[in-house]
Amino acid sequence: MERLIARERTRQVKVGDVPLGGGAPVVVQSMLNAAPDDAAANLEQIEALAEVGCELVRIAIPRADCLEAFQKVCEGSPLPVIADIHFDPQLAIEAARRGAAKLRINPGNIGGLEAARPVIEAARSAGIPIRIGVNAGSLDKTLAAREDLTLPQKLVASAIDHVRFFEEECDFHAIVVSAKAHDVVATIETYRLLAGALPGVPLHIGITEAGTAFQGIIKSAAGLGVLLEEGIGDTLRISLTDDPVTEVRACYMLLSALDLRKRSPELISCPTCGRTQVDLIPLAQEVERRLAALDKPLKVAVMGCVVNGPGEAADADIGVACGDGVGVVFASGRIVCKVAEADIVSALMKEIEAL
Amino acid sequence: MERLIARERTRQVKVGDVPLGGGAPVVVQSMLNAAPDDAAANLEQIEALAEVGCELVRIAIPRADCLEAFQKVCEGSPLPVIADIHFDPQLAIEAARRGAAKLRINPGNIGGLEAARPVIEAARSAGIPIRIGVNAGSLDKTLAAREDLTLPQKLVASAIDHVRFFEEECDFHAIVVSAKAHDVVATIETYRLLAGALPGVPLHIGITEAGTAFQGIIKSAAGLGVLLEEGIGDTLRISLTDDPVTEVRACYMLLSALDLRKRSPELISCPTCGRTQVDLIPLAQEVERRLAALDKPLKVAVMGCVVNGPGEAADADIGVACGDGVGVVFASGRIVCKVAEADIVSALMKEIEAL
Repeated sequence: MERLIARERTRQVKVGDVPLGGGAPVVVQSMLNAAPDDAAANLEQIEALAEVGCELVRIAIPRADCLEAFQKVCEGSPLPVIADIHFDPQLAIEAARRGAAKLRINPGNIGGLEAARPVIEAARSAGIPIRIGVNAGSLDKTLAAREDLTLPQKLVASAIDHVRFFEEECDFHAIVVSAKAHDVVATIETYRLLAGALPGVPLHIGITEAGTAFQGIIKSAAGLGVLLEEGIGDTLRISLTDDPVTEVRACYMLLSALDLRKRSPELISCPTCGRTQVDLIPLAQEVERRLAALDKPLKVAVMGCVVNGPGEAADADIGVACGDGVGVVFASGRIVCKVAEADIVSALMKEIEAL
Repeated sequence: MERLIARERTRQVKVGDVPLGGGAPVVVQSMLNAAPDDAAANLEQIEALAEVGCELVRIAIPRADCLEAFQKVCEGSPLPVIADIHFDPQLAIEAARRGAAKLRINPGNIGGLEAARPVIEAARSAGIPIRIGVNAGSLDKTLAAREDLTLPQKLVASAIDHVRFFEEECDFHAIVVSAKAHDVVATIETYRLLAGALPGVPLHIGITEAGTAFQGIIKSAAGLGVLLEEGIGDTLRISLTDDPVTEVRACYMLLSALDLRKRSPELISCPTCGRTQVDLIPLAQEVERRLAALDKPLKVAVMGCVVNGPGEAADADIGVACGDGVGVVFASGRIVCKVAEADIVSALMKEIEAL
């Protein structure tokens, strides 16, 4: 359990009713991309995200004329709503008054430490935490220009400056910190430094601007996988240039792969090879599609041949080991029937429903 | 460079002309799924894999009547071909005679240690290495039944038994070892144990039966990401219930994310939010599609707003920071033009071609 220590020793904050840090389950969050002045569109997106298990949502408030919509979203949302603010501290203060469950401000562009003071007071009055969200693309200019520091050192320096101000100058401790870069190796190094320098502070982890789904998922799973495995990270967002619903699904897949959260069924399916004598790829995809609606952590194996097939099918809760145009269906380790290729999916689903 | 030590201290073997281990670049491989008796179909698949950078291909030889096709594939293939053999040592011996650049046998089902001896002699005569490929779904039955061992311990025990026999009994050292499970945490633990127990042996890493593309890529990037980051892994396969071309693309994305190989351009693109005032998702996807043909490691940023946009666009080789229906294009850190949304892709591609 050594590897869980970093996560367990952070201080817990509450975002609405969601505990974050202090050994709570790693929280899954995403960010909306609907128009910020359209409350209905944002609420619709929140419903879709809640359905796939998203626990916190973040909304950008780029202008004062979006505050009214923000308030409506907070009032109607089934999930705690985080206000994402850049440049203008006044927007953060207003967001705190209008129902934000947490504020996210960016040290690089909020106007310096003193500009954060009234934001901190607004959060204190509202009883909500603040994320200090540093980003490589928007570092404070003086810090960005320093040639004696590496990018991870700059990101961490910016975060530490703000944490000290919040904690020591303002006696405000309900904080979460992030410091993201698009570079995976730099992000890993940054969070290791942060976890060492700020052992009590819950960390929000993510690879920023990770790209479209294929590249973004690989960069995020690799970088955040390394950190989570080291016990670093109390909440995560997988940033994709894609539908936020995909971000949330990817978060759960990653947490589930590392045994940190279990929500969805797991499909064990072989990559197919010259030994496979059924059309396995569409078969596995169909099983995956039908499993998507289930939110039980079942193990379902769809295997193409006799090499690992019987072993994996018997080891799973439900499984099928295929041969030449047939499938032998297993439930809880025992053979239950042998069916023709065309009937494999329905036979599997029947056993899954029976479970 | 501490983190590269494990990989650097392995012994190097050659698979055809591809060096594997001993600090060579991590080798990307995949496995064919065409019919094993159809040489033309396999060669066609190899061409497609070679085009995306695959360095080694593996073919299952399930029956003796596939050996002729295997030989033709070896003769016509631009990439070294690995013969994947289960159950029947005679097939491995024949494959070595017919042009295999490497053999893969499975300790759990090849018929015990002594059955491997003639296979080793055939490999020695042909001057080719052997992969000892243990798999959780096909462990030796006696070992699988032991209740005093964890799954990683069983996998490692099976591998070590075989390595000792190859090295000590048969004085055969051109070996590669793998020990895969579908469980990510178990696979990580297994390879850590292997790297400690067999420091000189090159390791082939992978998550077996990882599932269809979405789940399989996340499990593989997380598990193999952790291992590669610790310096473990001389060659990898990302096993997906999908097209092998996707496996190879995913391998390079992962290696590139960890700065271990660079082949493709990297797209830095933001996840979009309420601040985005252009239709960024299709725009980023279109840029990604056009970049796919390029095999230069360029950094291209496609950013939606002024928060991180100018910073990331200026930091990339080529970038665009979008505003309300317009994009400011950067090349090597300098603004080169401002164009309407409809012209962003062509303006970016023009700068990329100029580079």
